[in-house]
Amino acid sequence: MPYRAPVSDFRFLLDHVTDFAAVTATDKFSEATPDMTDAILTEAAKMCEAVLAPLNRAGDLHPARLENGVVRTSPGFADGYKAIADGGWIGMSADPDNGGMGLPMTLTTAVNDMMSAACLSLQLNPLMTQGQIEALEHHASQDLRDLYIPKLISGEWCGTMNLTEPQAGSDVGALRSKAVDNGDGTYAISGQKIYISWADNDFTENVCHLVLARLPDGVPGTKGISLFLVPKFIPDADGNPGTQNSLRVVSLEHKLGLHGSPTAVMEYDGATGWMVGPENGGMAAMFTMMNNARLGVGTQGIGVAEGAYQHALYYAQDRKQGKAGGSGSIIEHADVRRMLAEMKSDIFAARAIAMMCACAIDMTTATGDDTWRARAAFLTPIAKAFGTDTGIKVASTGVQVHGGMGFVEETGAAQFLRDVRVTAIYEGTNGIQAMDLVARKLMDGGEAARLLIEEIQAGSEAARSSHKELAEAVWQAAEDLRETTDWLVAQTDLNQRFAGAVPYLAAFARVLGGHAHLAAAIHGDAARARLATFYIRRLLPEVSGLLAHVREGADDLLAITPEDLAA
Amino acid sequence: MPYRAPVSDFRFLLDHVTDFAAVTATDKFSEATPDMTDAILTEAAKMCEAVLAPLNRAGDLHPARLENGVVRTSPGFADGYKAIADGGWIGMSADPDNGGMGLPMTLTTAVNDMMSAACLSLQLNPLMTQGQIEALEHHASQDLRDLYIPKLISGEWCGTMNLTEPQAGSDVGALRSKAVDNGDGTYAISGQKIYISWADNDFTENVCHLVLARLPDGVPGTKGISLFLVPKFIPDADGNPGTQNSLRVVSLEHKLGLHGSPTAVMEYDGATGWMVGPENGGMAAMFTMMNNARLGVGTQGIGVAEGAYQHALYYAQDRKQGKAGGSGSIIEHADVRRMLAEMKSDIFAARAIAMMCACAIDMTTATGDDTWRARAAFLTPIAKAFGTDTGIKVASTGVQVHGGMGFVEETGAAQFLRDVRVTAIYEGTNGIQAMDLVARKLMDGGEAARLLIEEIQAGSEAARSSHKELAEAVWQAAEDLRETTDWLVAQTDLNQRFAGAVPYLAAFARVLGGHAHLAAAIHGDAARARLATFYIRRLLPEVSGLLAHVREGADDLLAITPEDLAA
Repeated sequence: MPYRAPVSDFRFLLDHVTDFAAVTATDKFSEATPDMTDAILTEAAKMCEAVLAPLNRAGDLHPARLENGVVRTSPGFADGYKAIADGGWIGMSADPDNGGMGLPMTLTTAVNDMMSAACLSLQLNPLMTQGQIEALEHHASQDLRDLYIPKLISGEWCGTMNLTEPQAGSDVGALRSKAVDNGDGTYAISGQKIYISWADNDFTENVCHLVLARLPDGVPGTKGISLFLVPKFIPDADGNPGTQNSLRVVSLEHKLGLHGSPTAVMEYDGATGWMVGPENGGMAAMFTMMNNARLGVGTQGIGVAEGAYQHALYYAQDRKQGKAGGSGSIIEHADVRRMLAEMKSDIFAARAIAMMCACAIDMTTATGDDTWRARAAFLTPIAKAFGTDTGIKVASTGVQVHGGMGFVEETGAAQFLRDVRVTAIYEGTNGIQAMDLVARKLMDGGEAARLLIEEIQAGSEAARSSHKELAEAVWQAAEDLRETTDWLVAQTDLNQRFAGAVPYLAAFARVLGGHAHLAAAIHGDAARARLATFYIRRLLPEVSGLLAHVREGADDLLAITPEDLAA
Repeated sequence: MPYRAPVSDFRFLLDHVTDFAAVTATDKFSEATPDMTDAILTEAAKMCEAVLAPLNRAGDLHPARLENGVVRTSPGFADGYKAIADGGWIGMSADPDNGGMGLPMTLTTAVNDMMSAACLSLQLNPLMTQGQIEALEHHASQDLRDLYIPKLISGEWCGTMNLTEPQAGSDVGALRSKAVDNGDGTYAISGQKIYISWADNDFTENVCHLVLARLPDGVPGTKGISLFLVPKFIPDADGNPGTQNSLRVVSLEHKLGLHGSPTAVMEYDGATGWMVGPENGGMAAMFTMMNNARLGVGTQGIGVAEGAYQHALYYAQDRKQGKAGGSGSIIEHADVRRMLAEMKSDIFAARAIAMMCACAIDMTTATGDDTWRARAAFLTPIAKAFGTDTGIKVASTGVQVHGGMGFVEETGAAQFLRDVRVTAIYEGTNGIQAMDLVARKLMDGGEAARLLIEEIQAGSEAARSSHKELAEAVWQAAEDLRETTDWLVAQTDLNQRFAGAVPYLAAFARVLGGHAHLAAAIHGDAARARLATFYIRRLLPEVSGLLAHVREGADDLLAITPEDLAA
């Protein structure tokens, strides 16, 4: 069951659903012509189908392992990594001055989607490097940029993020790692970090860790944290990997999935590092990296959903059973058809949201406009949480479509579910994304939300003459969302917002999905229109239940005491 | 994090939510006095907490394996099985004439719930045996009953179900296994069966397989299938295990979870078997076994949900992080509280439905009344699908509550999710349960459904004076359900029903859950009332979206062609 990259979906979203035309109309991204876009999508698709997808199962069966302090990667991963690096896919959106292609994040998002579908555990490596490149571009000194970025883009070196410590999970401010000024422009970094994805490998010359740590005079909490670049091998005078730094991989986690990606406990024992960004300004620098990583993780969920969907679709087309009529395959059963339609229409919705978010990021980059910046900021947690929730839901439905075979590991259906489960957790749990959405992202009084809702309603008003019923349904769902958004904005006690944060995010995503599907009904072929009808009639109505949940606020929830829950 | 059996929940459901008072008022079940019920629940709880729960992780880490054709079970499982057998828990509801306790299925359901929570992979063994005992009680000859049932009840022997064949998954009628009359009262059974749970073990003297096969003159399809009892060792003249039968375990599956339970491919090569039930009447006999196994599997889902919930609750109580206020644990965060409240209130709803179903089965057994029989038949697919869907949802939320630790296998959170995933698939996928509900279970013109809905509405009308808002919400949801049920009944084209079968089942379960929670608000303490308020205000509103999906029918779904899905 080979993976087939959904190139036509990307083209459709770029042409008819997102603001990609505005992106390519900017000077900044004028090189992203239709021909260039086609070439990018086609070449990336080829690599994902031919090189990466065949590695996916091997990564699961032969996990990365620690041998004498060195990580040995899964069979074929070194070649897969080389293909990604050689294709230029790591630095697609990086500054051309450092060897990047300077292409829109929107195209990087499409390529990351395909790479995630083909081999999530390997793709996580360049995703982390992409984030590091961006953090260095924005916050590092010229010397650091000149030395590191070209090597990261070429894939000779790769990058990691080191935030979490055992006592401080989502609460980064509680970290204890220390940094002491060596007086020579470097710092001595000490501490333990956990959940470090791709902390080491056997196919890059160097591994560059971005590590959060506290200077001796750093205040407690997040305001006393600085960011340091700590390479595995300290570059020599020529910029080549030299002395081994005082850091080591302590152990690898035994995980539910993503076995091909080594997740490490890291120990820093006076390791030499260079500061990135200002003293005590580490969180801002790290957020640059994390924000785009959030879109990247949402995209991982969508990619895995696509892989799981195709896997289930092949099975349903192939499996003969019962008096199904038509082809005699189980795809003829109404309930199997329903599962597949739900999977495919959810993927389209999630992918549209991720691409809309990427376009907003590109427009911000190109224009510096604050409205675009606010839109990107608003859409990021939605893209992350809905993309990954869709990944989990679709992968689980994929298991179900397989019946008993879905529970047997040999079919590969279960691997999608095991692999994707972590995407709802890392880079900020989906609960944290939702809290970010209803708190920080509504701090503008709901302006960014309202502008989006207005755009959705304008779209449905324009569609009313040609697609009355669908347009009305989207308009009404958006109206309910507007009212609930106003209600949330009026809540000054943040707990009133937090209690319904997750269902609010889910409802917003559903409505955005309705908007995208309505565009598909208008601009797409008959197949897209049928799928849009399914989504808008059958899945969009979930919104009313979700928003009812939101508008309950926190009182009756917080009235349930910890003792009640333990009763 | 030890498992603590939810005895008080069972007591509450027996006393205030289900028809258990009616059950114990019958002659048949008059021995199930309050004292006896208390003793059963307390003793079972003790065994589950002290003996079974400590085995759960070992079963995952050290899967059952095949050695020279013999299954070697996980460490400790032999002792665990002995505790279950010695406690009399296998034959709780079996006929006292054969050594059973003759207790209501409702109590067996409670005990199965606890055993599933403690160690699902081991509990699956006695669950299969319980089904076999019941099939033999109803369909086997006196000789077979006298020989086999006491040994199955005592646990000296155990039982399996052999339905599925490689080319025939859910479509049992396509089976190819053959049975030839040996002319001496036995039959020679040949064929291959797959997905045989607990096909062999190293702790019972014998393993008794119930095998579906076709006689030479059996017509194609389900009407030409007969049922045979095929023991691993053929009993000698004294009823002791004698010659090895011509059957073997070919291989064990490598599964997503449930590693402690061996799932086998079985080969029968002219094995000696005895017919159970009439010639070509195998499906009816097998359905006796499957129907109660369906409730049993639903109960598995609920048990695992309870285990996963408690696991997550302990973590949330213990884990200090962030400015959570109160105890400083993450349970103080509104979104963590929401997750836990959703888990606990869903479990209560699912458990109430399973116990209502069990009571209806008991009332049917005790009275032979067709109204009770119809209710049991109607509730069975709901109990199965909603119980297992709740198991999966709660286990996945449990992973989420753990954050990064949830993805690391050592915490055990992920095991619940891996183990429970199959429950939505085996004993008839949840899609098949839903199709059964909207087709066969509405063949009475919706009578059984309407009687349930009337009971729900009568309950909410009675509650109106004391619990106006909650009662009104439940009444209205039931009214929407009634209208949609009428709509379904009016559809003569079954595809119109099948297209919305899964959301209809989900909506019916939600409303039944609302009914149970309303009873909890009335009869329970303040903690139960707060949880009920949460469920009715926040989760019950899902019903409107689900029913909107149902009422779309099949046209726009089936308009989506297989080619659309592959586009």
